Amino acid sequence: MDNHLAIKIVLDGFKRSLKSASKLLNELPENDLLQEIVPTKNSGHYLLGHLIAVHDNMLPLLGLRDSLYPELMEVFIKKPDKSGLLKPSIAQLKQQWEEVHQLLVTHLESLTDEQWFEKHTAVSDEDFATEPHRNRLNVVLSRSNHLSYHIGQISLLRK
Amino acid sequence: MDNHLAIKIVLDGFKRSLKSASKLLNELPENDLLQEIVPTKNSGHYLLGHLIAVHDNMLPLLGLRDSLYPELMEVFIKKPDKSGLLKPSIAQLKQQWEEVHQLLVTHLESLTDEQWFEKHTAVSDEDFATEPHRNRLNVVLSRSNHLSYHIGQISLLRK
Repeated sequence: MDNHLAIKIVLDGFKRSLKSASKLLNELPENDLLQEIVPTKNSGHYLLGHLIAVHDNMLPLLGLRDSLYPELMEVFIKKPDKSGLLKPSIAQLKQQWEEVHQLLVTHLESLTDEQWFEKHTAVSDEDFATEPHRNRLNVVLSRSNHLSYHIGQISLLRK
Repeated sequence: MDNHLAIKIVLDGFKRSLKSASKLLNELPENDLLQEIVPTKNSGHYLLGHLIAVHDNMLPLLGLRDSLYPELMEVFIKKPDKSGLLKPSIAQLKQQWEEVHQLLVTHLESLTDEQWFEKHTAVSDEDFATEPHRNRLNVVLSRSNHLSYHIGQISLLRK
């Protein structure tokens, strides 16, 4: 039971962060989201795309299914904000945000307790034998922190 | 074993975030830390004190011991940045940062698996009976996200 509880705590935390991120993104006018958080640094636009790309990539990383928008990885993970690559519009990204998270959360909610403690796909069997913490639970926890980090930044665009 | 592993994952995540926060704080010149992250918003100075105050308060909240610097709560939690209240210097806060975290991590590392799943001190027995996730593990997880949120902001002070 405690085991189950620990999973619930981590998953609930991630879902809570996603929810407050969605709220923030819906409150921010599109024009504000397009701005750099501070001069010369990432824009809200880039960070929005970055979070979608990272979370979409959790689908294959956790062995759940293929990612929905693999093309976002080039623009929002491999390249920095001012790469010159064309970004999807804010409206399109907001739609992808909803889609990716609905799918991701549904998949995460269907995992059994055992599956949460299985290795993720970027770890070899050999490494997992000596590093048993490199499992799905750890990935979700680490992505929660990553999400909070960037949401703290996007929140600065609020007037 | 999986239970133990879940605790290790949450605690290691918190320790990793603290470590990278310490690195950032040590790299930032004092003059930069004194600046507002963006005009009219919190300064690095305030956020540093805020994080110390919140983490210091985890000691009593988790039933570990009294907090070391309860006076920080007034300046950095109850009041906003521009309250007019005198803030301790950056040098003093950096020393308190080290002290509070060394003590907190030592206490957290000494908790048994059972103790991690016990309720924290701000929950009544009645509430805990129906909300068993309001335990120490949940507090540390939620403080990890809170830390990441503000570290994402402080990181914007890097030139």
